[in-house]
Amino acid sequence: MENLSTLVNHQIRLAARPNGLPTRDDWSFTTAPVSEPEEGGILVKTLSLSLDPAMRGWMNEGKSYIAPVEIGEVMRAGGIGVVLVSKNSSFNVGDHVTGAPGVQHYWPVGDKQVARGDVSKIDLRVGTIEQWLNVLGMPGMTGYFGLMDVGQPKAGETVVVSGAAGAVGQTVGQLAKIKGCRTVGIAGGAEKCAWVVNELGFDACIDYKAGDLKAALKQQCPKGVDIYFDNVGGDILDAVLTRIARGARIIICGAISQYNNTGAVKGPANYLSLLVNRARMEGIVVFDYAPRFHIAIAEMAGYLKDGRMKSREDIAVGLEHFPETLLRLFRGENFGKLILQVAKD
Amino acid sequence: MENLSTLVNHQIRLAARPNGLPTRDDWSFTTAPVSEPEEGGILVKTLSLSLDPAMRGWMNEGKSYIAPVEIGEVMRAGGIGVVLVSKNSSFNVGDHVTGAPGVQHYWPVGDKQVARGDVSKIDLRVGTIEQWLNVLGMPGMTGYFGLMDVGQPKAGETVVVSGAAGAVGQTVGQLAKIKGCRTVGIAGGAEKCAWVVNELGFDACIDYKAGDLKAALKQQCPKGVDIYFDNVGGDILDAVLTRIARGARIIICGAISQYNNTGAVKGPANYLSLLVNRARMEGIVVFDYAPRFHIAIAEMAGYLKDGRMKSREDIAVGLEHFPETLLRLFRGENFGKLILQVAKD
Repeated sequence: MENLSTLVNHQIRLAARPNGLPTRDDWSFTTAPVSEPEEGGILVKTLSLSLDPAMRGWMNEGKSYIAPVEIGEVMRAGGIGVVLVSKNSSFNVGDHVTGAPGVQHYWPVGDKQVARGDVSKIDLRVGTIEQWLNVLGMPGMTGYFGLMDVGQPKAGETVVVSGAAGAVGQTVGQLAKIKGCRTVGIAGGAEKCAWVVNELGFDACIDYKAGDLKAALKQQCPKGVDIYFDNVGGDILDAVLTRIARGARIIICGAISQYNNTGAVKGPANYLSLLVNRARMEGIVVFDYAPRFHIAIAEMAGYLKDGRMKSREDIAVGLEHFPETLLRLFRGENFGKLILQVAKD
Repeated sequence: MENLSTLVNHQIRLAARPNGLPTRDDWSFTTAPVSEPEEGGILVKTLSLSLDPAMRGWMNEGKSYIAPVEIGEVMRAGGIGVVLVSKNSSFNVGDHVTGAPGVQHYWPVGDKQVARGDVSKIDLRVGTIEQWLNVLGMPGMTGYFGLMDVGQPKAGETVVVSGAAGAVGQTVGQLAKIKGCRTVGIAGGAEKCAWVVNELGFDACIDYKAGDLKAALKQQCPKGVDIYFDNVGGDILDAVLTRIARGARIIICGAISQYNNTGAVKGPANYLSLLVNRARMEGIVVFDYAPRFHIAIAEMAGYLKDGRMKSREDIAVGLEHFPETLLRLFRGENFGKLILQVAKD
């Protein structure tokens, strides 16, 4: 067993509620000693953290689908770690586990937290740590259940996904392609769009920064948009609404364009297109599908194995770089799932 | 047979596309002779016209769920008439029929129009002319299929409907009550709200003009809103979005608050509540349910007969009063389904 007294838990805590984009002042850097877990608990060493657009919402006051991070709390973050000390018979030292370690090097998981399922083992023979944070993890599950359960794609339909180069977007587009759909991404910049087509295999990708999004949608989706998986909201959602097909399904997964607004959220002015087209807009929260994650993971792992699905990550290194790395999401700088590696296995 | 040469067909035509609320100048008053129908056709004398919020949309340029009324055309209007001359073996003189006579005294229905089902017989033993334009007509069918098919109410759920005193609203609220739901209307003014509760039997009605709509919703819907049937859009839709329950269904039927906007439609800024609450917003167009109208009519006629459903109409008289009567809808002045009676049976 490690000598815990030599270890220091570096942590990043929420110091203030950001107004707009989070700044350095919204964070505080703290350290804490690392101690033995209580009976029934485990101590996890964090390896890699998942950086997600949803984190911005957790920093705001007020309840959403999940409680906000309180001021002074270690910032919430999903991630993967390795069991360093175990006082629970279900976990062995060296087991790889997933859960929400938070932005810190060591994650003490108490008896009750273990009992309620806050931490679960992952099998690195099924996928790498990166894949477990991406297409086999929360973003992958979000894309899978949003597309399959809410979207209900049929072969030959046209599926459009915004944030196409992101973690959820890449899953949705590739999965839609596997299901026989025409897949059109929306992303920012020519380079990213080329990557979405060439690397991820989408049929097309529209650069929303290049100008006339409606015209591009008309060109790439001549029969209209049957499924729109929305990660961004704002003007892009409004543009897609003008091109939906009859009976379209719009999955509301997120609205990254609006998360750092200091004013009101921009509502979709073209929402009456739902009426004209007998279409539906529906929200999804991935946690609801937890009982079926294992089914989706098995299916996705199969696609990873046979090469039909790629898991692409954009990896930064070092816990201390969390604040500026998170901003890359909101600046649209990541190509693939953004991961912060904080320790080597 | 009538001497048709003595008859004059007074008509109201669309003269210009309105900017905001339609004015007198947007209409032209014309007359036309009345002639024998062609072989296979019929001539219908208009009795009563249905005045509906959707008419405002038909006056705009550009395709919606239905083609716009062209400049110079007789204004489209649903209604009921009586067959005056028949050259079609399926119709007898004196038959009562429903269809879209338009704003005119006489409606010539050609061979092809009859063949494609533009006109259909109604049975006045099942309901009165007014009821056939209201709960047994398009508004009733809209309310029925919007609530039942899209909303899927379950006993004990809370159903909120805006435009509660209108034709669709009264159907939705009463039907939801029959299905065992708590029914809360939203309407403009204390008098109208009292009428919705006392006359139509809603559990409650919120006066949106009285002030804090969100607080009133919280009070009247303590467990949240499971189904919201939206006829109005705008700020009311936005307020209800803050109070929806998990798994809520929002039926987008119309947006009367936005139809006379000269600027952009106000999109629902709180649409991300769909995500937080795993809720759905879906559009409905009544024509899609035409094959099942007869089933809904039979059910609704039963409720009319046993007194569980009331059909309340607000009747104006005289074709020439069409322009100002239509405006009553947009000013929220009607108590019940607005009907323009243009001739006696």
